[in-house]
Amino acid sequence: MKLSTTSQQLLAQLQTVSRVASTRSAVQALSGVQVDASGTTVELRATDMELALRVPLEATVEREGIVVLPARLLLDVARQLPSGPVTLELRTAEQDVEIVAGPAKFQLRTLRAEDFPPLPTPGGDAVVQVPALPLDATIDRVERSASKDETRPILTGVLVSASGTQLRMVATDSYRLSVKETALEVPLSGELEANVPVRALQELRRLISGSDDPDVRITVRENQIIFEHGAATLSSRLIDGQFPNYRQLLPDTYEHELHVPGDELAGVVKRISLMAQKNAPLRLSFAEGQVTVSARTPDVGEASEPLPIPFVGEPFEIGFNPEYLKDGLDSVGSDDVVLKLISPLRPGLIESGDGSGFLYLIMPIRLNV
Amino acid sequence: MKLSTTSQQLLAQLQTVSRVASTRSAVQALSGVQVDASGTTVELRATDMELALRVPLEATVEREGIVVLPARLLLDVARQLPSGPVTLELRTAEQDVEIVAGPAKFQLRTLRAEDFPPLPTPGGDAVVQVPALPLDATIDRVERSASKDETRPILTGVLVSASGTQLRMVATDSYRLSVKETALEVPLSGELEANVPVRALQELRRLISGSDDPDVRITVRENQIIFEHGAATLSSRLIDGQFPNYRQLLPDTYEHELHVPGDELAGVVKRISLMAQKNAPLRLSFAEGQVTVSARTPDVGEASEPLPIPFVGEPFEIGFNPEYLKDGLDSVGSDDVVLKLISPLRPGLIESGDGSGFLYLIMPIRLNV
Repeated sequence: MKLSTTSQQLLAQLQTVSRVASTRSAVQALSGVQVDASGTTVELRATDMELALRVPLEATVEREGIVVLPARLLLDVARQLPSGPVTLELRTAEQDVEIVAGPAKFQLRTLRAEDFPPLPTPGGDAVVQVPALPLDATIDRVERSASKDETRPILTGVLVSASGTQLRMVATDSYRLSVKETALEVPLSGELEANVPVRALQELRRLISGSDDPDVRITVRENQIIFEHGAATLSSRLIDGQFPNYRQLLPDTYEHELHVPGDELAGVVKRISLMAQKNAPLRLSFAEGQVTVSARTPDVGEASEPLPIPFVGEPFEIGFNPEYLKDGLDSVGSDDVVLKLISPLRPGLIESGDGSGFLYLIMPIRLNV
Repeated sequence: MKLSTTSQQLLAQLQTVSRVASTRSAVQALSGVQVDASGTTVELRATDMELALRVPLEATVEREGIVVLPARLLLDVARQLPSGPVTLELRTAEQDVEIVAGPAKFQLRTLRAEDFPPLPTPGGDAVVQVPALPLDATIDRVERSASKDETRPILTGVLVSASGTQLRMVATDSYRLSVKETALEVPLSGELEANVPVRALQELRRLISGSDDPDVRITVRENQIIFEHGAATLSSRLIDGQFPNYRQLLPDTYEHELHVPGDELAGVVKRISLMAQKNAPLRLSFAEGQVTVSARTPDVGEASEPLPIPFVGEPFEIGFNPEYLKDGLDSVGSDDVVLKLISPLRPGLIESGDGSGFLYLIMPIRLNV
């Protein structure tokens, strides 16, 4: 393998692709970037066996071949290379790749190319083209609710559905549930539904922010989803099993439906949460015309702050996990927030009052009086 | 104790003072900030028993008193307070301080005030006034060479000397030695010499960058140094024992004295150092008209790069710790660098060619051929 490119090109593409390389696999090749210079084009590839990313490298192939180089080290070297032309050449006898840029010469030992798995290729299936910005904004609203607990793999995914002019994503870690429905301007050419690892969607957001391609082309296969955006191809395994039926989790009716100033409430919650340490709940006390947010941590202290809201009826108190409540108020993305409540032991709902199709259900914490 | 101030004032002063509070002392009060509202002024204080910092708080004292509050928590609370007036009031029965800002109310449990030590006060001694910017710049040149090894406490300090129109600082961790002599425009009113913990000087640099006071007033006592800058007072214990006689460490004469382009050499060293992992040395091979910098890590790879320099004489090779060589080239702060060498097993010297009074001595590493 021998190719020539520029250090700027090499660095830009390595910065993208190396994010996906594994940092802790027992298989050394998975910590590497595969440089594939077969034919006349060059592609850089990385995978941690869950996600995989392929990006093209603008380069001239002088001799075909495939090598795998340590991702982290190659990126560090690319960062330090003098700007200008760079050549990469496999030296078979030495089992290394010589990188020459101006007077600087590096020889990097290759990793075992045989251990690098083949990556999925898009095409041959029905591809649904989805506009990139609504996709990005929809992920942004729900990603915090996906579970980080690998023992419940189904909940580490986001249920992504798209058909007609509707894009919907649902995520829940069983303590809170986010649903975002986004209306698309133009009907989609096909439809899809898949439980996608939240990491894949987060990586997709990075790709979207780094390219001005207006669309993402999505292919769903039995166990796989493939996103094509700009010149990059991101693939991910799908999560097996039935995603919870979130509609069953949503109460049919609520006792209280309160329009509250979202930014102010978020400020109060953030402030008072400082005193809800060591798993202490945040306490919301509703009374005629106001809610008082309070918290108390033994041996540390306590805090409280009232906020005028249009509450009427019997006073009651409800407790929430402070982080989850903050996440909900941050995710709603509107100052006009609707708070829907039933009673102290039933879940509460946070919606945006501007009908933007977002809802956030949050389980209460039982309060010791 | 009761005082009133603004949340902006409180936050600004806490951000400065809380840096010095201990983060891991067995004595809880040392993780706190002492709020002293005796008399008509308020002072905030923190110490970890090595450094101590006192800053004033613009406030109205409504009732005198002294309390100690957890530094980290108080800072977090101050960050989140609504902007505007704030009152702090000790509630003796509850052993807490009530902080009220607008509708928000916090009660923070106090720490044991008796455990907070008295801090040094300046005055009563000869004070030497030193201009702040030369002081800052001089610390900047030498701080990297101070040792981080607490088992050799003498080397964790910087030897600071000032008299007449000369300010000098010396630091060494026994692998490298930095000396910076700075000429002052106006002769000092007194003189001083002290082995000051590098942490104290680094904290002093932060104070200098945060205030436009043109001077630092320095008091040296037997075991103590006190810096006054702006409205802040920073004190530190001094390090006991005899600082090494650095003049003895400097060779009298050198075989080679080479003017080299500092920025280019620093770039080459930074680049090639990537391949000097696992304690591998950086190798400098001098030959007619050039130096080649190279490094090699088994199983990882190697790198080399030549740089034209005006070397004449018998070729030779010398090895250096890559980090120490980088530090030296970074510290010299000039593109015109003079490299002075004797032989492969004798220390090398890096100087700035512009006569700015900086020198950096670096020990070689024996190379296996």
